Amino acid sequence: SDAIPRTQGLALPPGLSKPAFLSAISELRTILGTQHVELIDGDLQNGWYMEHPNTHDMMPILDSEKFVASAVVYPGCVADVQKITVWANKYLIPISPISLGRNLGYGGSAPRVRGSVTIDLGRRMNKILDINAEDCTCLVEPGVTFYALYEDIQKRGLGDRLWIDSPDLGGGSVVGNTLDRGVGYTPYGDHWAMHAGLEVVLPEGEVVRTGMGSLPGNNTWQSFPYGFGPFSDGIFSQSNFGIVTKMGMTLMPNPGGYESFMYTFQNESDLVPLIEIIRPLRISNILENVAQLRHGLQTLAVKGHPRTRYYSGGGPMPQSIIHLELQKAPIGDHTWAYYGMTYGPPHIRKYKSDIIDAEFRKIPGCRKIDPSTLPADEYFWSRDKIAAGEPDLVELLWTNWVPNGCHIAFSPVSPIRGADAQKLYELAKKRHTEAGIDLMPAFCVGLREMHLIVEIVFDGKNEEMKKKAEKCLRDMISDAAELGYGEYRTHLALMDQVASTYSWNDNALMKFNEKLKDALDPNGILAPGRCGIWPKRFRGRGWEM
Amino acid sequence: SDAIPRTQGLALPPGLSKPAFLSAISELRTILGTQHVELIDGDLQNGWYMEHPNTHDMMPILDSEKFVASAVVYPGCVADVQKITVWANKYLIPISPISLGRNLGYGGSAPRVRGSVTIDLGRRMNKILDINAEDCTCLVEPGVTFYALYEDIQKRGLGDRLWIDSPDLGGGSVVGNTLDRGVGYTPYGDHWAMHAGLEVVLPEGEVVRTGMGSLPGNNTWQSFPYGFGPFSDGIFSQSNFGIVTKMGMTLMPNPGGYESFMYTFQNESDLVPLIEIIRPLRISNILENVAQLRHGLQTLAVKGHPRTRYYSGGGPMPQSIIHLELQKAPIGDHTWAYYGMTYGPPHIRKYKSDIIDAEFRKIPGCRKIDPSTLPADEYFWSRDKIAAGEPDLVELLWTNWVPNGCHIAFSPVSPIRGADAQKLYELAKKRHTEAGIDLMPAFCVGLREMHLIVEIVFDGKNEEMKKKAEKCLRDMISDAAELGYGEYRTHLALMDQVASTYSWNDNALMKFNEKLKDALDPNGILAPGRCGIWPKRFRGRGWEM
Ligand SMILES: Cc1cc2nc3c(=O)[nH]c(=O)nc-3n(C[C@H](O)[C@H](O)[C@H](O)COP(=O)(O)OP(=O)(O)OC[C@H]3O[C@@H](n4cnc5c(N)ncnc54)[C@H](O)[C@@H]3O)c2cc1C
Ligand SMILES: Cc1cc2nc3c(=O)[nH]c(=O)nc-3n(C[C@H](O)[C@H](O)[C@H](O)COP(=O)(O)OP(=O)(O)OC[C@H]3O[C@@H](n4cnc5c(N)ncnc54)[C@H](O)[C@@H]3O)c2cc1C
Repeated sequence: SDAIPRTQGLALPPGLSKPAFLSAISELRTILGTQHVELIDGDLQNGWYMEHPNTHDMMPILDSEKFVASAVVYPGCVADVQKITVWANKYLIPISPISLGRNLGYGGSAPRVRGSVTIDLGRRMNKILDINAEDCTCLVEPGVTFYALYEDIQKRGLGDRLWIDSPDLGGGSVVGNTLDRGVGYTPYGDHWAMHAGLEVVLPEGEVVRTGMGSLPGNNTWQSFPYGFGPFSDGIFSQSNFGIVTKMGMTLMPNPGGYESFMYTFQNESDLVPLIEIIRPLRISNILENVAQLRHGLQTLAVKGHPRTRYYSGGGPMPQSIIHLELQKAPIGDHTWAYYGMTYGPPHIRKYKSDIIDAEFRKIPGCRKIDPSTLPADEYFWSRDKIAAGEPDLVELLWTNWVPNGCHIAFSPVSPIRGADAQKLYELAKKRHTEAGIDLMPAFCVGLREMHLIVEIVFDGKNEEMKKKAEKCLRDMISDAAELGYGEYRTHLALMDQVASTYSWNDNALMKFNEKLKDALDPNGILAPGRCGIWPKRFRGRGWEM
Repeated sequence: SDAIPRTQGLALPPGLSKPAFLSAISELRTILGTQHVELIDGDLQNGWYMEHPNTHDMMPILDSEKFVASAVVYPGCVADVQKITVWANKYLIPISPISLGRNLGYGGSAPRVRGSVTIDLGRRMNKILDINAEDCTCLVEPGVTFYALYEDIQKRGLGDRLWIDSPDLGGGSVVGNTLDRGVGYTPYGDHWAMHAGLEVVLPEGEVVRTGMGSLPGNNTWQSFPYGFGPFSDGIFSQSNFGIVTKMGMTLMPNPGGYESFMYTFQNESDLVPLIEIIRPLRISNILENVAQLRHGLQTLAVKGHPRTRYYSGGGPMPQSIIHLELQKAPIGDHTWAYYGMTYGPPHIRKYKSDIIDAEFRKIPGCRKIDPSTLPADEYFWSRDKIAAGEPDLVELLWTNWVPNGCHIAFSPVSPIRGADAQKLYELAKKRHTEAGIDLMPAFCVGLREMHLIVEIVFDGKNEEMKKKAEKCLRDMISDAAELGYGEYRTHLALMDQVASTYSWNDNALMKFNEKLKDALDPNGILAPGRCGIWPKRFRGRGWEM
């Protein structure tokens, strides 16, 4: 039932005939070994998070055969990756690297250009190359998941010294998540800021190491990110300028204690004063981690039941029903729930939590939830794990909200200010109401900014709902841009639109990106279109959408 | 007496005849206004830190006329900067941007290529464009010094809310220091990590804004550094890829209290165990700021007296004399002095300082200095000011150590490990002893790495001493590279050598940098040779040294 009927046949790379492509593939098989090159000509299988496909976007917002690979290759080492790029340049075949391909909500494992050859780096290149307990750093290959890193640290007996920082789902890769500038929930939540050192295969096949990595015999690759000369790491994030084969990451030293806390707020309108309270506490590190401020509907959805259990009407679920259901829940009725953590020994935590308590309680109706009253399967405990550096999977549960639960995110950035939160919340509400979609906003609070994450959960087999979801997303993106807000990351289908909102000075930044792209990838073979960057060969030929 | 006799006349840009250059200059005068273009054909004047020249390196390690500009231009706005790049491309004249040109020890205001036209951005573009007390950020033009930013914050009555982070001398520019990846001494000491958002004029004249800056109407340029798509800021640091005309910087919120502390350690060999003690405390933020661990000779030198007051012999000053002199000093005899600060309210500071005290005292002979015993002019109080976010100039005093006191730095990076500190210290000692130069090492301790800063103080008018200093530096750079250590930053004269140590995989990183350089600056007009990056027009034609 998870098989997708294919009506369009093998997705060929643009410009190649089937025989030409098959002959190129057989050459690639000679180069890498037959077993490491897989043609994607059979049915597409959707699977689920843990057994996700590497062939296509299993959560398609557009036609299911839009973002599909022609083949998947499994390099076993850096030299293999280099050979693949040389091959791709020879035949002008677009290649699309993934580490694990669990980028769900943003396109999963799919290439932007139909018929690209996916490079699945993670399957065979999945070693933890180093864990340095003195410097609190590690060096990993693309296939290392947050789970694997966590477990290896425990296995080496370093669990009481080193913490990792995981996103809400621990099955993603350290490399892929960080390259997409993903976010986790300890004080090390800004993954890009926390990485140190890359090894990159450039589109024409050269390998570079950034920072101290290019000094032979160095022991500082993971402890000093910059090196000497231009600091080039950033241009390999959210781009199509290189294939990352190794990445260094800093690890958080055990803070000597931690304690989760949770507050709820009753009214929708509490958002504005609450965010105003959060900002100074966050910037001064009294609120220490990347915390989440979530809407009550998510409290309900993350229980993992379908929405039909609560409501069978059309359009967004009425707020009255949400409140009614929350009244029955262990944490009680609310509109907003704040999940945070304090770190350090008890008296240090108390110093911070006393300040937080006094500040949060300025909002009438604020309640501090006593964790001892919460059952073991309450979502709170999942946030507790993650904020303490332990990967989890519970967050998956809200994808059960609708049948064939797919999701896609609207992820704008704003300052930590009440007025901005309000504007983004209002525009999302307006567009969700128009589209008849349930609104599930969560604010992830960074140091000086928030990512508002609005996941639209849709039925992947309901074409009408998909169209509504797409329109809702595109409307939100353009409404937000008009107010000065932009997305920090987006789905394949929305990359052109989002990139076009970063248009200052006649799209000067995109022209600059294109100049770099053409210099580094003159044949335009690496992930064309990713983040809206099209190489010369594709640019202005109708690929943008 | 500070005038340098010129024997070589006007320094022409390479490849231009004098008439051709003069005619280009008169065209530039028409474009920018005569008063904003200055031909450097008279005597060169050295001045001092506060009245430094913008025409040449006033601390020449090579021939005084080696690093000299042909002209200096003073743009008044971004459009002027664009016009200058267009002009430079037309005549193939190298241009070399400075913000303030106080990069003393690394080449000052000088261009790498003799006869370049210096763009002095700071003189006219020196506005503080924004100070945001809510987000704790600011936006500045190149001419804004740390002093100016500090004073403006006080003037606006925000002094009790916002701190800045200054390097040891407050007269440098926020933009220039940060672009050279300079370091300060509060918890915000890693300036590059703390910046947010750039506006850059590219070598061919286009203007881009990075991060959220390219989203029209945004209010997140200074609060979220990354934006969408490739994060390109890094390639504009330590490079010659663009001219930065605006930079955002985060500001530290007032931590609610602070307290300087100082410990001394008696023996040279205490270095190894001390660094081992520092590492875990630093990574876990018990030691919160970028602190300095300085050698006793610096305690002496920073009093500001010439070395001849203590010793008139040749070769390095004997350790016995250093100890003898330190015995008379308020802080007493020692080999190493650690200057740090704790932040926060008293009981929070006490928690940290108790741990630090217990750990540091594991080293026999360790002494905690009671600040109340120190006179007001003791150097300790300068470190106290700087670590509390107030700019200072006291650090200048050690340049009095020899007549015509110039200096140039050896600045390798290492992990925070005793064995590494030891190896670097030993190689520096060996090479200083050979050269007969006093060794003044200071470790600036970042989060997971240290910059060892060894300043060689030399007599700018003593050709023999200059030769010895240069040899000593080059020897240290190559000794260090052989052991796997590289410099984080260097002087104009040493850039090629330092860049060549980052040679992994047949100089792959430099080839990559050159590819970017040629794409962005096809005529090779912007700061050729900076950080060892030569544009095609210059490459392999004997410019490297
Ligand atoms: C329920 C749910 C909750 C989620 N919560 C979070 C969250 O809290 N935080 C968060 O950040 N994300 C979250 N996500 C999104 C996503 O699951 C994670 O970001 C995940 O880690 C990304 O997948 P991955 O690590 O397998 O990366 P990949 O899919 O391997 O990579 C992502 C993209 O980066 C590029 N890339 C990857 N590897 C390379 C490489 N080696 N070289 C060059 N380019 C490369 C490719 O373009 C690729 O498409 C969530 C998703 C779901 C379904
Ligand atoms: C006694 C002493 C102590 C010192 N202590 C420290 C210290 O603690 N920490 C530290 O970091 N430094 C230190 N320095 C070195 C130096 O003084 C400072 O780093 C100073 O801030 C740099 O000068 P500036 O800000 O005027 O930069 P500039 O000289 O203006 O810039 C430095 C370089 O950056 C590039 N650049 C500058 N502006 C631009 C621009 N707008 N666009 C493109 N490129 C640009 C140019 O190549 C320029 O040469 C010290 C120096 C002395 C003499």
